[in-house]
Amino acid sequence: MQEIIDRAIKHGWGYIGYGKPAAYIPELSKVNPNQLGISVIQINGENWNSGDYEAKFTIQSISKTVALIMAVVDRGADYVFAKVGMEPTGDAFNSIIKLETIKTAKPLNPMINAGAIAIDSMIQGESIDKKFERVLDMFRRLCHNHSIGNSEQVYNSEKATGFRNRALAHFMKDSGIIEGEVEEVLDLYFKQCSVEVTCKDIAMLGAVLAGDGVSPVTGERLLPRSLTRLVKTFMVTCGMYDASGEFAIRVGLPAKSGVGGGIMASVPGKMGIGVYGPALDEKGNSIGGIKTLEYLSNEMDLSIF
Amino acid sequence: MQEIIDRAIKHGWGYIGYGKPAAYIPELSKVNPNQLGISVIQINGENWNSGDYEAKFTIQSISKTVALIMAVVDRGADYVFAKVGMEPTGDAFNSIIKLETIKTAKPLNPMINAGAIAIDSMIQGESIDKKFERVLDMFRRLCHNHSIGNSEQVYNSEKATGFRNRALAHFMKDSGIIEGEVEEVLDLYFKQCSVEVTCKDIAMLGAVLAGDGVSPVTGERLLPRSLTRLVKTFMVTCGMYDASGEFAIRVGLPAKSGVGGGIMASVPGKMGIGVYGPALDEKGNSIGGIKTLEYLSNEMDLSIF
Amino acid sequence: MQEIIDRAIKHGWGYIGYGKPAAYIPELSKVNPNQLGISVIQINGENWNSGDYEAKFTIQSISKTVALIMAVVDRGADYVFAKVGMEPTGDAFNSIIKLETIKTAKPLNPMINAGAIAIDSMIQGESIDKKFERVLDMFRRLCHNHSIGNSEQVYNSEKATGFRNRALAHFMKDSGIIEGEVEEVLDLYFKQCSVEVTCKDIAMLGAVLAGDGVSPVTGERLLPRSLTRLVKTFMVTCGMYDASGEFAIRVGLPAKSGVGGGIMASVPGKMGIGVYGPALDEKGNSIGGIKTLEYLSNEMDLSIF
Amino acid sequence: MQEIIDRAIKHGWGYIGYGKPAAYIPELSKVNPNQLGISVIQINGENWNSGDYEAKFTIQSISKTVALIMAVVDRGADYVFAKVGMEPTGDAFNSIIKLETIKTAKPLNPMINAGAIAIDSMIQGESIDKKFERVLDMFRRLCHNHSIGNSEQVYNSEKATGFRNRALAHFMKDSGIIEGEVEEVLDLYFKQCSVEVTCKDIAMLGAVLAGDGVSPVTGERLLPRSLTRLVKTFMVTCGMYDASGEFAIRVGLPAKSGVGGGIMASVPGKMGIGVYGPALDEKGNSIGGIKTLEYLSNEMDLSIF
Repeated sequence: MQEIIDRAIKHGWGYIGYGKPAAYIPELSKVNPNQLGISVIQINGENWNSGDYEAKFTIQSISKTVALIMAVVDRGADYVFAKVGMEPTGDAFNSIIKLETIKTAKPLNPMINAGAIAIDSMIQGESIDKKFERVLDMFRRLCHNHSIGNSEQVYNSEKATGFRNRALAHFMKDSGIIEGEVEEVLDLYFKQCSVEVTCKDIAMLGAVLAGDGVSPVTGERLLPRSLTRLVKTFMVTCGMYDASGEFAIRVGLPAKSGVGGGIMASVPGKMGIGVYGPALDEKGNSIGGIKTLEYLSNEMDLSIF
Repeated sequence: MQEIIDRAIKHGWGYIGYGKPAAYIPELSKVNPNQLGISVIQINGENWNSGDYEAKFTIQSISKTVALIMAVVDRGADYVFAKVGMEPTGDAFNSIIKLETIKTAKPLNPMINAGAIAIDSMIQGESIDKKFERVLDMFRRLCHNHSIGNSEQVYNSEKATGFRNRALAHFMKDSGIIEGEVEEVLDLYFKQCSVEVTCKDIAMLGAVLAGDGVSPVTGERLLPRSLTRLVKTFMVTCGMYDASGEFAIRVGLPAKSGVGGGIMASVPGKMGIGVYGPALDEKGNSIGGIKTLEYLSNEMDLSIF
Repeated sequence: MQEIIDRAIKHGWGYIGYGKPAAYIPELSKVNPNQLGISVIQINGENWNSGDYEAKFTIQSISKTVALIMAVVDRGADYVFAKVGMEPTGDAFNSIIKLETIKTAKPLNPMINAGAIAIDSMIQGESIDKKFERVLDMFRRLCHNHSIGNSEQVYNSEKATGFRNRALAHFMKDSGIIEGEVEEVLDLYFKQCSVEVTCKDIAMLGAVLAGDGVSPVTGERLLPRSLTRLVKTFMVTCGMYDASGEFAIRVGLPAKSGVGGGIMASVPGKMGIGVYGPALDEKGNSIGGIKTLEYLSNEMDLSIF
Repeated sequence: MQEIIDRAIKHGWGYIGYGKPAAYIPELSKVNPNQLGISVIQINGENWNSGDYEAKFTIQSISKTVALIMAVVDRGADYVFAKVGMEPTGDAFNSIIKLETIKTAKPLNPMINAGAIAIDSMIQGESIDKKFERVLDMFRRLCHNHSIGNSEQVYNSEKATGFRNRALAHFMKDSGIIEGEVEEVLDLYFKQCSVEVTCKDIAMLGAVLAGDGVSPVTGERLLPRSLTRLVKTFMVTCGMYDASGEFAIRVGLPAKSGVGGGIMASVPGKMGIGVYGPALDEKGNSIGGIKTLEYLSNEMDLSIF
């Protein structure tokens, strides 16, 4: 196994030069683009690592899976999906068009920015600080790492430049999808995106989902099975932005990427995989990370299809 | 002449029942929908009035003409039209779609909300208060009425509910169309929309435009001729929201409407007309106002075509 | 006057190098791009010419004005505008999007391709040949030239390559806007676009419109006044494709362009102008033609605004 | 097992009243809406049936899976996916918008109408008749039923009314996606949609896909494994029109529906399922069929997630 993931990383390395770090968040563009790391955690707890697997990076859109979990736990699926759809979209992750053209004005799914912001408006807590504390707690439990925190620099950077997300949020406020204060909801969103993790952390998250909600470390049930299925399904249909369809064909695994360079993948019944490589392709996915996962999936026959 | 406008008002009255006041701004929905008034001012200063011509109403989108004048005066036409287009659009006044689909990301024209907000970001002044003072001064000069002010209630109502406009503004901030602070630009926009006028005020504005920039009262040149042509052209192609084409065919006059119920029309070389009727059709135009103008245009053969 | 139009042509010449002939119709791309000509005909019949005013070219979209006239004569305005809108659009002339997004599925106006094809489906006649004969008769009467015919080469070229127009027509057939046989309607459309004219012919058409329907040659009334107003209004709001707004500002005249290189302009109460220059700008309008008209309008103060 | 599928059908029955047969194809609207049937075939050949499983219906969009298989076999995946995308879409199955707004003009995937028509243009054969013969042969082999044919009535009905599909095809012809004769490509498409099958036939197709290409009856390899994965992936991300995301969540199986009322589902490594119920929901999927599959998936824990 160690050998396979070493080879996978080596394979992924060959593609790093074709990508580059996210440019639209100033803080993210400063990162060293030549990193590539992987962690694999089986649902029985066994694990392997390779490359820059200890490098810290911000979780970005991968956090949308955890936010979705919390919203469903807090409000129930019926409430959540009355305001956010379940359908994939051929539009870019930050597109605003469908909010105007679709009759219901619902964001199409919880994995695009509009949907994720709507999801954040449903997370409960007395204040934004309390809400974010709850989100952090969930991250720490699911990743089995009590030292997880967030990067103030990245948070401030996103907050200072997140005008497109503000446009999405105000549009949804106008159509009644978002109920609270727009800037507070965005604050939670920017904070959650700036949570810092390593490959091991997101591999653990993937392993919990792979194990239908049971911790690979303690054997404790952390999430109900139906909820882990819900999340894995969204990861397949919408997890890799508007390259989700191609990823499903080439790799065939539930996965969620972030512009920080991470990809969290989950092999149902088997393992969680965390990869990190900040050089992104034009869709915003880690270019080396995708190639590493593609190699691994083919080599180990992991596709769910 | 008095007889004709009396008949025109009577004709317009017949249609009031088919419309209703703007609902999306709480403060506007409280108005008495049965009002209808008209003022006509020739470029030589002669004038006539009929109906509820002394009723005060907020100028709303009619202010976009004055804001455009100020931006062009402050920055020059080249600067202004590098950031805002000149083309009519078949989309609704508050549509955001074109900002995403058009390559340049420019709002299509200065008469839709997106364009008007962008225009407001170009008006000069040390602070928002100073900028609004300059806008008010311009209103007072062009309407020849030094007591013109704005309604704090309507301003506060729009500010509290203007989420769609915030979405437009943040989207344009993201794409570099707007340079300053978004909330400050919006503040100026909401203030300018809440300026209170009567039919006489906007008839005077229309008369100044009709006279190529010369005051019907003092004979003083208030605006350069080229600028008044620019404004009248936009009034024809985009002045009546996405009913501009039909209005051009049925009435044939440069005109700008506002959801407050006012319509400012300008008959080149002849006269300015101000009408007020808060019952709106589904496009957001005064339903009685349009019918009054249609009657007048047909009766007096005013169409420019 | 002769001097002014000579200078205008000279001015227009300076811009020819920035454009190029239409490429999407093979037959049109073969033309000599360095031609530029103008004819001016006053409503009293006086006229002047300059440059390549005798060059023949295909009328293309300018024919949409004549087709609109015939549909309104044949069916009445109410019938026509129940199926085709009156609004300008910010989309390109061959755009199909609005047919899907707008609830009524109506093409926005009779000057875009979709609208013009719908208009053609309303022209009466026992067969396509009979219909086209009627259209040709109307051209001959309005242009006061009984030798007007069409180019079989251009007709065949358009017919062989007009797939986008076929897409528009079938879409409208599906939504019930078009009633007859799609290929027959398209046949009439391709034929009408291939009608060959000179600057003199379209100047005469513009002069008839300028004179509210009266022939400048015979003094005979050829069209009802209301119909000429309707056409001139559409020429202002939608006559120059998605550059209509800018043209209205810079030139200020009702005008209709075609990708054959012609522009037919009408100065209400004064004159018709025909210009021809096959080098087009990126919106599909004659680049030298626009500049010639702009010079003329400024020099002679012709703007209607 | 027999008991479970009997209960599943009974469950599905309860929802039939909320749907109705396809109205847009005249021939389809005449069917008895109260039918519901199911066939299940394990990859070892064992099988069960319930309800109206012997009723014949036209395969409609389910044929898109077979057409995709043939295009990839004939041209290779690289050629195919240079012209058709791999991404799901939030738009309706017959939407034309993305063809205009997306830079590449490629239809988003092979399961929407535009993509399926493009796919049909890649199937090889000397004539349309030969091509359709090849398609029929493939159907017969994959469904293990040599008597499969097509309904001339439904074919003629679709051909006579398929204007939206003609619009899609001509649009793609214009942008170079389709190379051959548009009407010939459409002819193949209409023919393939009119192929008549029963629940048993499509259950067999699903079983071949479930078995990675091996026939449950003969044990013969009919398709390469990679190709069956490709098809199953598209079935998950785009198989149920713009309800694919919700179906993935509620049922969790690769499936492809048709407006004829059939749904072909494939449980990887286990079985194929064919259901038929002509009452459709507003997305165009068999309403009873979906509920039957949902019951079965939950009861037997079949979800792939």
